[in-house]
Amino acid sequence: MRQTQLFTKTKKEAPKDEVSKNAQLLIRAGFVHKEMAGVYSFLPLGLKVLSNIINVIREEMDAIGGQELALTALQDKELWQKTDRWDDKQVDVWFKTALKNGTELGLGWTHEEPITRLMTQQIASYRDLPVLAYQFQTKFRNETRAKSGIMRMREFMMKDMYSFARTEAEHQELYARVRAAYQRIFERVGLGGRTYAAFASGGAFSKYSEEFQTVSDAGEDLIYIDETSGQALNKEVLTDEVLADLGLTRENLVEKKSIEVGNIFTLGTKFSVPLGLTFKDETGAMAPVMMGCYGIGPGRVMGTIAEVLSDAAGLVWPASVAPFKVHLLSLNADEKTLEIYDALTAAGIETLYDDRDTSAGDKFSDSDLLGIPYRVVIGKRSLASGQAEVKPRVSADVEMISFEGLVSYFTQH
Amino acid sequence: MRQTQLFTKTKKEAPKDEVSKNAQLLIRAGFVHKEMAGVYSFLPLGLKVLSNIINVIREEMDAIGGQELALTALQDKELWQKTDRWDDKQVDVWFKTALKNGTELGLGWTHEEPITRLMTQQIASYRDLPVLAYQFQTKFRNETRAKSGIMRMREFMMKDMYSFARTEAEHQELYARVRAAYQRIFERVGLGGRTYAAFASGGAFSKYSEEFQTVSDAGEDLIYIDETSGQALNKEVLTDEVLADLGLTRENLVEKKSIEVGNIFTLGTKFSVPLGLTFKDETGAMAPVMMGCYGIGPGRVMGTIAEVLSDAAGLVWPASVAPFKVHLLSLNADEKTLEIYDALTAAGIETLYDDRDTSAGDKFSDSDLLGIPYRVVIGKRSLASGQAEVKPRVSADVEMISFEGLVSYFTQH
Repeated sequence: MRQTQLFTKTKKEAPKDEVSKNAQLLIRAGFVHKEMAGVYSFLPLGLKVLSNIINVIREEMDAIGGQELALTALQDKELWQKTDRWDDKQVDVWFKTALKNGTELGLGWTHEEPITRLMTQQIASYRDLPVLAYQFQTKFRNETRAKSGIMRMREFMMKDMYSFARTEAEHQELYARVRAAYQRIFERVGLGGRTYAAFASGGAFSKYSEEFQTVSDAGEDLIYIDETSGQALNKEVLTDEVLADLGLTRENLVEKKSIEVGNIFTLGTKFSVPLGLTFKDETGAMAPVMMGCYGIGPGRVMGTIAEVLSDAAGLVWPASVAPFKVHLLSLNADEKTLEIYDALTAAGIETLYDDRDTSAGDKFSDSDLLGIPYRVVIGKRSLASGQAEVKPRVSADVEMISFEGLVSYFTQH
Repeated sequence: MRQTQLFTKTKKEAPKDEVSKNAQLLIRAGFVHKEMAGVYSFLPLGLKVLSNIINVIREEMDAIGGQELALTALQDKELWQKTDRWDDKQVDVWFKTALKNGTELGLGWTHEEPITRLMTQQIASYRDLPVLAYQFQTKFRNETRAKSGIMRMREFMMKDMYSFARTEAEHQELYARVRAAYQRIFERVGLGGRTYAAFASGGAFSKYSEEFQTVSDAGEDLIYIDETSGQALNKEVLTDEVLADLGLTRENLVEKKSIEVGNIFTLGTKFSVPLGLTFKDETGAMAPVMMGCYGIGPGRVMGTIAEVLSDAAGLVWPASVAPFKVHLLSLNADEKTLEIYDALTAAGIETLYDDRDTSAGDKFSDSDLLGIPYRVVIGKRSLASGQAEVKPRVSADVEMISFEGLVSYFTQH
C-alpha cells in the first residue's frame, strides 16, 4: 500500500489523558482511535494486526478440531437467572438494556449460558460427543476502571472456546489439547518466552484453573515464578498447601507483574446441570455433559505485544502479526522506489511504501513508530550503487541488498 | 469435513413460532439458532455462508480502494446530540445502556457520527482526500417487529462504507464507483438478475438515494419496475413529478414485493458541518467534506438467498457462498468414499462427507435441505461400475463420473 493513500496519520504526541503505553503508541501510530475510556476503534493498520492475531488463533483452534460459530451480544434474563448470574449483585460487569416493551436484556460478557442452552438442541447421545466449539465475538464489560488502553476494554473481541465431553478423562484430554494450542499461539505471536501458564483457583470441579500470564511491568496481576521449572502460580493460590501440592518452595519463587493474556478452566457440570445439557451414555443412562472454557482476547494480546516488545522509538511487531512485512522508504528516489514497490507487491510481499512528500527524518521516525519488521531505504546513494539499505526494526544492522535481490531476500526472510 | 464431526444436526420440523421461510429452513438445516425474536446465532455451516458473503463484499470494497476499519458498538450521547440523533423521539431504534457512574451510552445502529468525528483527526487538507473507509461491524436496532428471520435482526452484522470527498463532482465519482461494486456483489452472490437499484428519496443534499431491492414475496417493501429499461423506484418517490424526471410512465410499471439488500446515499455536508469535518482546499480556504454512505447487511443477503433461491426440498446455495462445494454421500460404501473424500480435500475441493450411520433416505433429504451445490453419491452400484453419481442441487440431471475423474471434474466446475 502507498502511504499517501492510507487515511491515518501519525502524531508526535499522545493524547494527554491516555496513561497506558500501549494506547499512547497505538494512537500516535494511527492503529487505534479512542472513542471514550475503555472503548477503542481499530483503524486500518491496527485492524490488520488484530486480524493477523485472530487468524493465528483460528488456525490453532481449527487444528485441534474446533468448530467456529458466532453467538450474540443480546442476552435474555431468564437464561442467566437459571445459573444465578443475572443479578448485578452476582455479576458486576453487566451492561443492561431493554426492548421497547420493557423486556430487560443484557450484553454478553461471557457465553457459557447461551452455548450450553444451544448445545441442548444438538447433543443428545454419547455419539454426539466430544465437541469443541469456539467463536470470535464482541464482549461487553462494564468495567469501573479502564486505564490500560486496549488491554482492558469495555467492548472487546474475545475468542472463547467451550469443550463438551462425556467423562472427566475425555475432558482432561480436550483440556490438554487446548492448553497445547494456547502455548503454540503465544509462541507464534511473539510472546512465548515471557508467557507462563500460572496456576489459579479452580472452583468446584477442579483444583486449579490456569491463566496464561505475560510478564510485564504494565500488568495488573502478580505471579510467582519458579524459574528453574518454569512453573508459576498467581497470588490467590500462593499458600503452603498449594506449594506443597505443586512441589514448589516459597524461597525459589520470583514475584513478577504480569498481564493475563488467556485462561483455561474446567467447568465440570456447573452449567450443564442447571441448563439441562445431558446425554444418553453407552448404557442408555442419562448423564450431564462435562464442560471446559478457554479464552483469549486478541485485542489484549495486541496491547501486550505493544507493551512488552516496543522500544523508545515506537512499536515493534513480530512478522506473524505485523500489518506489513516491509516498510519501503523513498528518499528522493520515487521512480526507482515505485519500481521496487511494484516488484515486491507482485511477489506477494506485503509492503507499505512511504511515498509521502516529507523529510527523511520524518520518514525514519514514523517507520520506527509503526514498527514494521523490515525497513528498506532507497536514496541517492542507492541509485548510484544499485543497492537498497535493509534494516530489521529490532536491530541497528544495515544490510545492503541489490535492487534485483530484494524479492528473493524477502521471500527467504 | 466429516458430517459425524459436525456438532449441528438437521431437524424435520421448524420451530412453531418461526414464521419466516428463511429462518425455518436455516434452523432446520442447523445453520442458525434463534436466541430470541430477532436475535440469531450463526452455527458452523451458517457462519461459513456468512463469511463467504463477507469475503465477496470485502474483495469488492478493497478493489475500489476501500480501507477497512472497525468502529465500536458503544456510543456516547454528546456526539449524537450534535446531530440531533440521540433522542428516542428522533431515532426510535436505539438500545440504550449506561456506565456504572450513570453516564448514558447507546448501542450503534449506524456509524456516520463516530466515523465523521474520527476523520476530523485524520483529514485536514485536500491532499488527504478522497477517502473510502468501511467496516464489518455489529449493529443494534431496537425493532418493534422482528418476524422476518435473519432478514430483520435486532443485532446484525453490517458492512457500512463511508466516502469523503472534496467536491460534489468527486463525490459523484466515488458514489458511482461504490454503486458499480454493489452491482458486482449482488451478481457474485447469485442475486443479480432479480435485484434492482431502485430510486428512493434523497434528503437535503441529493434528489435521490438508491436502494438495492431484490424481488421476493417475502419482502417488506414495494417497488415499481419498468421492465423494459430495468429502472425501478420505491413507493415513497412514486409521484408524477419523479416519473417525469426519470422518463417513466405509470402504466409501464409493475409492482413487486421486494427485500432491501443494500442502499447508497449522498450525505453531502449533513454530518461534516455539525461535527466540524473540514479541510483546507487548494486555495487555502476551509470547506466541509462531502460525504456518502453505503450499506449492505451480509446476514440479510444470506436470508434473501434462502428466501429466493430455495425450493420445496430445502436451501440452495450459489457456489460463491456455499458452505462446501461438494456433499459426498456414502451409501454403505464407506471405505471407497473415504478414499474419494481424502482425494477431494487434498485437492482443495471443500467437501462435506456424510459418513453418518443413517438411512439413504435421510442422507438424500438432508443433502437437499443443506443445499450444497453438488451431491456425489457412492453406493453399491458405484463400487461395481467405478463411477460416482454427481447431481447439481439445482437440477435433476445425474452424471456418472469415474472415481479417478472426480477431482478434475470439480476443479473444472
